[in-house]
Amino acid sequence: MLSIKISGGIVEYLPLQIPIKNKKCVVIGAGKVSLKRTRRLLNCGAEVLVVSPKIGDAFQSLEGNLTVIEDKYKREYIENAFIVAACTGDKRVNKEIYEDGLEIGAIVYTADEMRPESVVFPAVIERESVIVSLSSTGSYPLLTRYLKDEIESVIPDFMDEKFIKRLSKYRREMIENIPDEEERKKKLKDFLNNLIAAGEKHE
Amino acid sequence: MLSIKISGGIVEYLPLQIPIKNKKCVVIGAGKVSLKRTRRLLNCGAEVLVVSPKIGDAFQSLEGNLTVIEDKYKREYIENAFIVAACTGDKRVNKEIYEDGLEIGAIVYTADEMRPESVVFPAVIERESVIVSLSSTGSYPLLTRYLKDEIESVIPDFMDEKFIKRLSKYRREMIENIPDEEERKKKLKDFLNNLIAAGEKHE
Repeated sequence: MLSIKISGGIVEYLPLQIPIKNKKCVVIGAGKVSLKRTRRLLNCGAEVLVVSPKIGDAFQSLEGNLTVIEDKYKREYIENAFIVAACTGDKRVNKEIYEDGLEIGAIVYTADEMRPESVVFPAVIERESVIVSLSSTGSYPLLTRYLKDEIESVIPDFMDEKFIKRLSKYRREMIENIPDEEERKKKLKDFLNNLIAAGEKHE
Repeated sequence: MLSIKISGGIVEYLPLQIPIKNKKCVVIGAGKVSLKRTRRLLNCGAEVLVVSPKIGDAFQSLEGNLTVIEDKYKREYIENAFIVAACTGDKRVNKEIYEDGLEIGAIVYTADEMRPESVVFPAVIERESVIVSLSSTGSYPLLTRYLKDEIESVIPDFMDEKFIKRLSKYRREMIENIPDEEERKKKLKDFLNNLIAAGEKHE
């Protein structure tokens, strides 16, 4: 199992996919990393608050449930937050946010360095309901980029929205109509294999 | 961006990698899914409590910080939990655990069906500090298995512990010695490409 040595000991990471629709997420700082994290959180339907003394135009063009406050970090801003992202350029402030965030039981991310309890935002490949995410947990970001390209290349183009919806619909029908687990599994396997074979033929 | 229709509306998922070392995680139920989730949580160094009226031998052989209590679900068991996993065979009990878990601000997983605020445990491919995770967010688990094999096949064998450690060490050195970001990035890119070329040659 994965073990990453960072200052503070060895850390092991659990990959999860978390629904954050309408959940309060607070991003402190308004630089490049902040913009990236804010965009992802908004795309997942979160209610995002960005706090920084100066917030650039790039944030104006973001779509979603976004509030910006031009101010420096204060603990009151993260109250009731589900996710807190410390993305300021100041290590000491990031550490303060990290500690405050853990204290209120939030999921905490720090952009400047990996701390023992801070989470990783992996790179993401999405194809309708298929989500692939990957990271080198901070060890070599360029390797992540290399592998992302490789992985994208093995997810065939025919696995599009229509493909996944067809699978999903068939599975729901089978769950309704075939109570025997083994029999259902065989049917689901055959259906998938046939759909892949048909897709490959047309590529 | 990903949108999954489940009963209760459209849900969007944020993939994260979360350190759970020494965090309290509670798994209710002791069936196949419970065993799988318990094993993963233990592997990440969590402090795991399994609660079920009857807990089979398979749980005895698990390694890590595990406590088992043979009892039916009571709310007191999940107090202060970071993650709560509802894996009983009873839909009503799972729903009760789900609601209790959300109320105490835990990350909640439910094995029987996807609920609007329940998380997904994706399949995981690990190679030292590289973590790839994937799921079909419940739409077609067999597709996940198919893609997992495909993805594993494009992560070359030479990307082992030694390979990643070498990269990681080089990166730390460059961060220390090359202050210019562009110059450092070029060096990191060259180093990675050379290491991959050498690895491919020897395969």
